[in-house]
Amino acid sequence: MNKIYNPNKDTWSEILKRPTQSVADIEETVLNVFKEVDIEGDIAIDRYTQKFDKVTLDSVLVTAEEIQTAKSNISQDLKNAIVLAKSNIEAFHTAQKTDKVSVTTTAGVKCWQEKRPIQKVGLYIPGGTAPLFSTILMLTVPANIAGCKEIVLCTPPNQEGEIHPAILYTADLCGVTKICKVGGIQAIAGMTFGTETIPQVYKIFGPGNQFVTVAKQLATKFGVAIDMPAGPSELLVVADDTANASFVASDLLSQAEHGKDSQVILVSTSKKMIEDVEKEIIKQCSVLPRKEIANEAIANSKLIYIESDQEALELINEYGPEHFIVCMKNEDFYIDNISNAGSVFIGNYTPESAGDYASGTNHTLPTNGYAKQYSGVNLDSFMKSMTFQKISKQGILNIGNAIELMADTEGLQAHKNAVTLRLESLNLEGLLKKNKRNE
Amino acid sequence: MNKIYNPNKDTWSEILKRPTQSVADIEETVLNVFKEVDIEGDIAIDRYTQKFDKVTLDSVLVTAEEIQTAKSNISQDLKNAIVLAKSNIEAFHTAQKTDKVSVTTTAGVKCWQEKRPIQKVGLYIPGGTAPLFSTILMLTVPANIAGCKEIVLCTPPNQEGEIHPAILYTADLCGVTKICKVGGIQAIAGMTFGTETIPQVYKIFGPGNQFVTVAKQLATKFGVAIDMPAGPSELLVVADDTANASFVASDLLSQAEHGKDSQVILVSTSKKMIEDVEKEIIKQCSVLPRKEIANEAIANSKLIYIESDQEALELINEYGPEHFIVCMKNEDFYIDNISNAGSVFIGNYTPESAGDYASGTNHTLPTNGYAKQYSGVNLDSFMKSMTFQKISKQGILNIGNAIELMADTEGLQAHKNAVTLRLESLNLEGLLKKNKRNE
Repeated sequence: MNKIYNPNKDTWSEILKRPTQSVADIEETVLNVFKEVDIEGDIAIDRYTQKFDKVTLDSVLVTAEEIQTAKSNISQDLKNAIVLAKSNIEAFHTAQKTDKVSVTTTAGVKCWQEKRPIQKVGLYIPGGTAPLFSTILMLTVPANIAGCKEIVLCTPPNQEGEIHPAILYTADLCGVTKICKVGGIQAIAGMTFGTETIPQVYKIFGPGNQFVTVAKQLATKFGVAIDMPAGPSELLVVADDTANASFVASDLLSQAEHGKDSQVILVSTSKKMIEDVEKEIIKQCSVLPRKEIANEAIANSKLIYIESDQEALELINEYGPEHFIVCMKNEDFYIDNISNAGSVFIGNYTPESAGDYASGTNHTLPTNGYAKQYSGVNLDSFMKSMTFQKISKQGILNIGNAIELMADTEGLQAHKNAVTLRLESLNLEGLLKKNKRNE
Repeated sequence: MNKIYNPNKDTWSEILKRPTQSVADIEETVLNVFKEVDIEGDIAIDRYTQKFDKVTLDSVLVTAEEIQTAKSNISQDLKNAIVLAKSNIEAFHTAQKTDKVSVTTTAGVKCWQEKRPIQKVGLYIPGGTAPLFSTILMLTVPANIAGCKEIVLCTPPNQEGEIHPAILYTADLCGVTKICKVGGIQAIAGMTFGTETIPQVYKIFGPGNQFVTVAKQLATKFGVAIDMPAGPSELLVVADDTANASFVASDLLSQAEHGKDSQVILVSTSKKMIEDVEKEIIKQCSVLPRKEIANEAIANSKLIYIESDQEALELINEYGPEHFIVCMKNEDFYIDNISNAGSVFIGNYTPESAGDYASGTNHTLPTNGYAKQYSGVNLDSFMKSMTFQKISKQGILNIGNAIELMADTEGLQAHKNAVTLRLESLNLEGLLKKNKRNE
């Protein structure tokens, strides 16, 4: 572990550097799959499922029977846990609903803003050893609250052509409208162009490996939106002597087990805490099943001692962590002044894994420094804001001249003319009325 | 003009097809400028300003003197118009502020969502014949309400090294923190990487030609966000016999004058209205200064007769227009049921140019069908939503087991362990208390 004491500001950008990924070499592969899926549809999908997932499927669509089997293969305890998590996520995301915003900006000029659901959304859930059913909760719950009409889920089958029962159970519980056994690049291509079986969607959500990441990027070139750019998961903990070294170490490790390229950083105003956390990490890591992965991530981790809260805060804001744990006596200083973080966890009893699963917040968060400009997934991610306006005769009389003048200055005569015609017609109307009164 | 009567649904996608732009051939040019600006900074910027804008500047930064000169070169009438527009835009975007959303999802588990400003934003305003100072209003006003700390504006100088006074006046009025005389690809590259003079920003907003569009796309690969993908401007009007053919024609023309690739579509339940609008377009177009541009856009326009409101609505939702004007007796049907549109203009006295300049709504809107999944620029475009959570001892006791079970099922033991350690410590604490009571 790299221990760094009172680093000079000049060195921050070097210290906080994230591992860079080169994806140029896989872009061509991804583009080829896209082209083939666009032209051949299901035939190309099947071919790539055979190639990458080593299985030939009778049907890409999950059947009602398979869902029934999945339900009976899940323990009641796990069902209860999923239902508790779902209920908390629902409560938090339902509270994010916003009312119509309506303003009469000038007499006779009424403007309003409304949010309406994105009609068709697609979710991607990776396969492999870890069945990320928790991500299904995180994406389907707000999609349903938003009112999305079609929620398509793509996830790769195993070599027996099956999907993990926890994924099927959760998808069914959360009202996914179509579950497709398709993985990787071909899944993203399928939802981008639509095939005979896979519906075309307007926005794609969800995690994935570097192939999926590049495929999602490419999808944006074909008119599909994505949740956010991807990157390795990361956690920054700021802790003083009121923190519990064993808890802090467990949090850093829970991030480190995600992948070899995960980033974990401890910032502390206490040298003792840094020593204690280091010892605890070594102790706890040795018994983890994913210790090899965790060890490699930990080797790149940074334990940074900084004397002042102000400077610690500045460094954290420069980094913009995806997950940010605050275990400090003066926690309010950090809560009030953090500008760039995906999700903030406060106090000794708020492990990051609470937010990953069951507290109610969303776990799809901006990483790789994107917390500086991107929101984590929230209710609004499944909606778009639309504006409306209705202007009365009096209204256009009130703002018409300003519009004419501005349009004229910008050299857009037709824009001006659209107002002039209306003003002239109203002046004529007024004149006629006046004449009538005078008769 | 193409008049189409009761088109079959099978033909809609063909009828509604937008002009496709091929940008592959300019991607290399853009990438090269990016590389040079990244490595050489201001030197590369100056070189490209000389090459593309045919001018050598003493200083890239606009001086206080230049702003003073601009102020005295603007008429009081135009100043008043700009101030009126600003005030309406401020009123509408201030109303979009949202409160902190706070929920106790389970006893002891408090979650909240807050929006915080994107610290550094960049605006691009094209040069050329039309000085788009109105876009400065649309972007700086919400940026200021959001609380963005740095607002950088890049706009190309003319061959005398000058910026249009209306741009300088508006930028100064709206509190832009730095105005740089830089245009095109090099401006976007400058704000992406930062140079000695141009600050690096986190998100770039604003319109531009195809070079700027490709440059903004490329910027997203270097960790910068953009407002939205670009495309030619477009307008769809739905009108029945209660509409005014002359007004409708003027609105269609105001969109058509933007560019040869602009799209204008009239959908009508009245055959007479289609005939009348066609005549009015021909009449009005002939006297426009930009009639050549407008004529070409009009040649590609569609006048579509559809008998039923329900079918008209479906067609409009399939298209997803950037601007949508409703001049119908039963306007509420369209207002309530439109799913995909950037901004909606209702009634005979609500020209689209009102929203372009002064009503208060934003004119930076999703085009090219992106209204299906993207919002127009609004207050939230300048902020990001962050979540926070604080869990008490009781809280983690309440949801801890659910987290353990879910993490375990996903094969993430370190995630589970972060909870287990806390639960064990609390159990121990409870035991000690119990023993103390029993003593």
